[in-house]
Amino acid sequence: MPTKIIEPCRGAYQYPLLIKSLLLSGKRYASQQEIVHGAMRYSYSELNERICRLAHVLGAAGIGAGDTVAVMDWDSHRYLEAYFAVPMIGAVLHHVNVRLSPDQVAYTMQHAEDNLVLVHDDFLPLLEVLAPALPGVRGYIQLSDTAQPASTSLAPLGEYEALLAAADSQYEFPDFDENSVATTFYTTGTTGEPKGVCFSHRQLVLHTLNLTTTLAAYEGIALLRSEDVYMPMTPMFHVHAWGVPYAATLLGVKQVYPGRYDPDRMVRLYRDEGVTFSHGVPTVLQMIMNCEEAGKTDLAGWKLLTGGAAPTEGMVRQMAERGIQFFTGYGLSESCPVLCTSFMTPQEHDLPLEQQLPLRMAAGVPVGLVDLHLIDDQGLRVAEDGRSVGELVVRAPWLAQGYYRDEHKSAQLWQGGWMHTGDAASITPEGVVHIRDRIKDVIKSGGEWVCSAQIESLISLHPAVAEVAVVGVPDERWDERPMALVVLAPDAELEPGALQKHLMQFVSAGRLSKWAVPEEVCIVDTMPKTSVGKLDKKLIREQLQER
Amino acid sequence: MPTKIIEPCRGAYQYPLLIKSLLLSGKRYASQQEIVHGAMRYSYSELNERICRLAHVLGAAGIGAGDTVAVMDWDSHRYLEAYFAVPMIGAVLHHVNVRLSPDQVAYTMQHAEDNLVLVHDDFLPLLEVLAPALPGVRGYIQLSDTAQPASTSLAPLGEYEALLAAADSQYEFPDFDENSVATTFYTTGTTGEPKGVCFSHRQLVLHTLNLTTTLAAYEGIALLRSEDVYMPMTPMFHVHAWGVPYAATLLGVKQVYPGRYDPDRMVRLYRDEGVTFSHGVPTVLQMIMNCEEAGKTDLAGWKLLTGGAAPTEGMVRQMAERGIQFFTGYGLSESCPVLCTSFMTPQEHDLPLEQQLPLRMAAGVPVGLVDLHLIDDQGLRVAEDGRSVGELVVRAPWLAQGYYRDEHKSAQLWQGGWMHTGDAASITPEGVVHIRDRIKDVIKSGGEWVCSAQIESLISLHPAVAEVAVVGVPDERWDERPMALVVLAPDAELEPGALQKHLMQFVSAGRLSKWAVPEEVCIVDTMPKTSVGKLDKKLIREQLQER
Repeated sequence: MPTKIIEPCRGAYQYPLLIKSLLLSGKRYASQQEIVHGAMRYSYSELNERICRLAHVLGAAGIGAGDTVAVMDWDSHRYLEAYFAVPMIGAVLHHVNVRLSPDQVAYTMQHAEDNLVLVHDDFLPLLEVLAPALPGVRGYIQLSDTAQPASTSLAPLGEYEALLAAADSQYEFPDFDENSVATTFYTTGTTGEPKGVCFSHRQLVLHTLNLTTTLAAYEGIALLRSEDVYMPMTPMFHVHAWGVPYAATLLGVKQVYPGRYDPDRMVRLYRDEGVTFSHGVPTVLQMIMNCEEAGKTDLAGWKLLTGGAAPTEGMVRQMAERGIQFFTGYGLSESCPVLCTSFMTPQEHDLPLEQQLPLRMAAGVPVGLVDLHLIDDQGLRVAEDGRSVGELVVRAPWLAQGYYRDEHKSAQLWQGGWMHTGDAASITPEGVVHIRDRIKDVIKSGGEWVCSAQIESLISLHPAVAEVAVVGVPDERWDERPMALVVLAPDAELEPGALQKHLMQFVSAGRLSKWAVPEEVCIVDTMPKTSVGKLDKKLIREQLQER
Repeated sequence: MPTKIIEPCRGAYQYPLLIKSLLLSGKRYASQQEIVHGAMRYSYSELNERICRLAHVLGAAGIGAGDTVAVMDWDSHRYLEAYFAVPMIGAVLHHVNVRLSPDQVAYTMQHAEDNLVLVHDDFLPLLEVLAPALPGVRGYIQLSDTAQPASTSLAPLGEYEALLAAADSQYEFPDFDENSVATTFYTTGTTGEPKGVCFSHRQLVLHTLNLTTTLAAYEGIALLRSEDVYMPMTPMFHVHAWGVPYAATLLGVKQVYPGRYDPDRMVRLYRDEGVTFSHGVPTVLQMIMNCEEAGKTDLAGWKLLTGGAAPTEGMVRQMAERGIQFFTGYGLSESCPVLCTSFMTPQEHDLPLEQQLPLRMAAGVPVGLVDLHLIDDQGLRVAEDGRSVGELVVRAPWLAQGYYRDEHKSAQLWQGGWMHTGDAASITPEGVVHIRDRIKDVIKSGGEWVCSAQIESLISLHPAVAEVAVVGVPDERWDERPMALVVLAPDAELEPGALQKHLMQFVSAGRLSKWAVPEEVCIVDTMPKTSVGKLDKKLIREQLQER
């Protein structure tokens, strides 16, 4: 029997979930609170006006609903304004990953069908080279942090601030289908072209509402509340800066945008603007910790959320010693991104550091509305006992509904009706998710999933080892067996069996399964790496097959 | 040009906003946190199991998707379980207002098409009388707080706890359209039959996500965070107990349900269970403050939210003296209900009480996603200057999309595409909403809206006045003029012109417009009242017309 569904009465407003709604409350709660970037400093009332002005500027540039607007900028107030104005006129905001190779940048801009580009002076040289390959682009708007914008052959429509100043400060943003695409960006693997993901207004509104609750309501991990001051240390082109600019704007908190990343300047901004909450990948946080300014600054009171990669224990200890409140989140480009965050009760918060570390470094507990579990090769549920490893699959209201114009990879992503994270994980009986490996690097040995990352981590503790990679090699009896490739430290030697002996101590201590100890260790001179410096395990496996 | 909408790929899960999703996180964050009612005390893990058991019990009673299940209970753990289990199987939860007259209760149960009734022992006598008029009801489940359930002629299917104990603790709740009706209840005016409103899964999920943010993120009004302990003092049949049971469950906070309202017992529960947050209408809070147990108890640390009627200044002062953090919310049966809440910055929080009062007693600031403004008779916008009065109209994702099976009143509710609150209000330039009067009681004089409630409030300060009503009477020159009806205090006398003189001091002080002073004052022996004790202004106006 069907559920009861009642037609709305004539005139009833069927409220669509649109990004414009996220602007309503911040201004009301804190109209005079500040948005800061470089010399720019203005109120939420002005933010609302500037978003209206930008909408007019986009319209004058011929951009309307269904068009795509690319942004190439550092983290700035302008980027924040584009987060709102572009989707609010019904257009798509393409977050260009300016760190890709020029060819890849061109590919993404062609594939996303960009019609207009907002481009910072620093990226003009790149864009001048790419422009001939972008026939769909109808114009450029120049973003400049100096009084004298850089000269360029692109013949831009104008400079951002000048165009805004000349535009009307009122705009009636239209209603439209909440499933309209609001944003798009590209995710890169080790191989193949970048893959495009799209997020709708509905998805971003739901992600934001859930994120504000997650970051505010739990006393043990209260990262973003009305009196906090927010500064991202994640590029804003990277998965909506984890969705926090939308959340911060909804709440009406002070926002500080650091521009091009310079650790010393970011620490000064922390100090001078009273920043309390930031987020960034472990390498950026490590750079912050090690910069000169950090040595002269009291960092206690800074709440830092990391994600995108596993933090090292050393870094977390260093942060704890400086009084930093450190937490971890988990998500993907395909997941908007937030799926899990560290969770601690106030009681756990008071535990000695040693006991807090596993809680602070784990991927964490799934946030509201996120449904997830582990599956094995056959798609069957894997036990949540803290030890068993399976692929993490997920459902949430804000997951990419496929890869843009790539039916095959889309079907893989959503095989079985759950989104495949590609991550091998374990889940404790208390519900804490631990990411163990990329699924493609997991070694399937005798029906067990052996995580290469863990073996690598333990092997790297051996003093003779400079670099290590563990991959699965075919085995008649066990399907696969782990094999270790090792680059020795300068002048170091490794006796046969020494690494296995080293690993057996962890087996004895219950930290490693016996079947995870590789029989074969291969000393190599160099380790194959990808363009971004990660181990290229695909290549390693291919080379091993050719033996 | 249309916006860009991309079809989800094959297999992509299009996550519907269903009430079952609200259960995911509370259990994960605080599986051992407690739900308390009387002698019952169990964890969130058990709550989840009990909701599964109840779903089986409902199924065994022949209830499926599209059916309607009525609940007649005090605030209890059972009611909380029904908040989830009934909608989660696709059925509609009818919150029966047991305070209506028996005829009205019967009307609502017929009109809602109830199929099963969960009924507390205390309401068996009523239901035994009504049963013959409810041919659609296929069965009864008895709710009992005693070891020996009351005997009844209704032949119930069984007693709630016994049925749950015998049922399976696992249930796979289905997916269905997020626009499916989840709840229904009836709102009564001074005339006519009760009007039914319905709320969908989508509406309740959005209301909940927004409420958790609103109650957690603002330091000046932090009512509900993970370490709080929640106890409603609003009937759970009344507009979803303001939506807080859903919000509390999402967060995983301890919940205490007080059963039948007994002020002394509620104060003891506050003390013994460590309650920190409650909400109730002013009359209930006043009863709490005045009860014997309150005199013996330290009430500092209790955060109280009121709404449903304007709090009196005297009550608010009394609460402040006891150290209670007091706030006001605003909403309607038609609005799920939350539209506005008090808002204070931490700085305002530190102001002297006199300056805090207007902030704590106002309807407050619109919460996230709520769009509202004031309109005049012609539907034109009224200035938000803190003085001008207009009808408050609103849009939000959780508004009733009409009155159930009442096309005419539905069209009135949504005239012009905005929901009419029926409230006359002013809005300050800072965005604070002040409710001034019911729109039908506003006196339209010379193009100005004069609020009867304000004049009544000022007249009631005169020592000779025991009761007062101000209504508009037709006037050739000004359309309407205010007229005051007064019941004198015992042995008091009122000279002609004395009341006008009394009011002129407020005109001089700028608190009242000159044209709000009634020329005509009529001394009466008794004041017409409705069945619930409110001034019956409709009858007063009718009687005056017959003069």
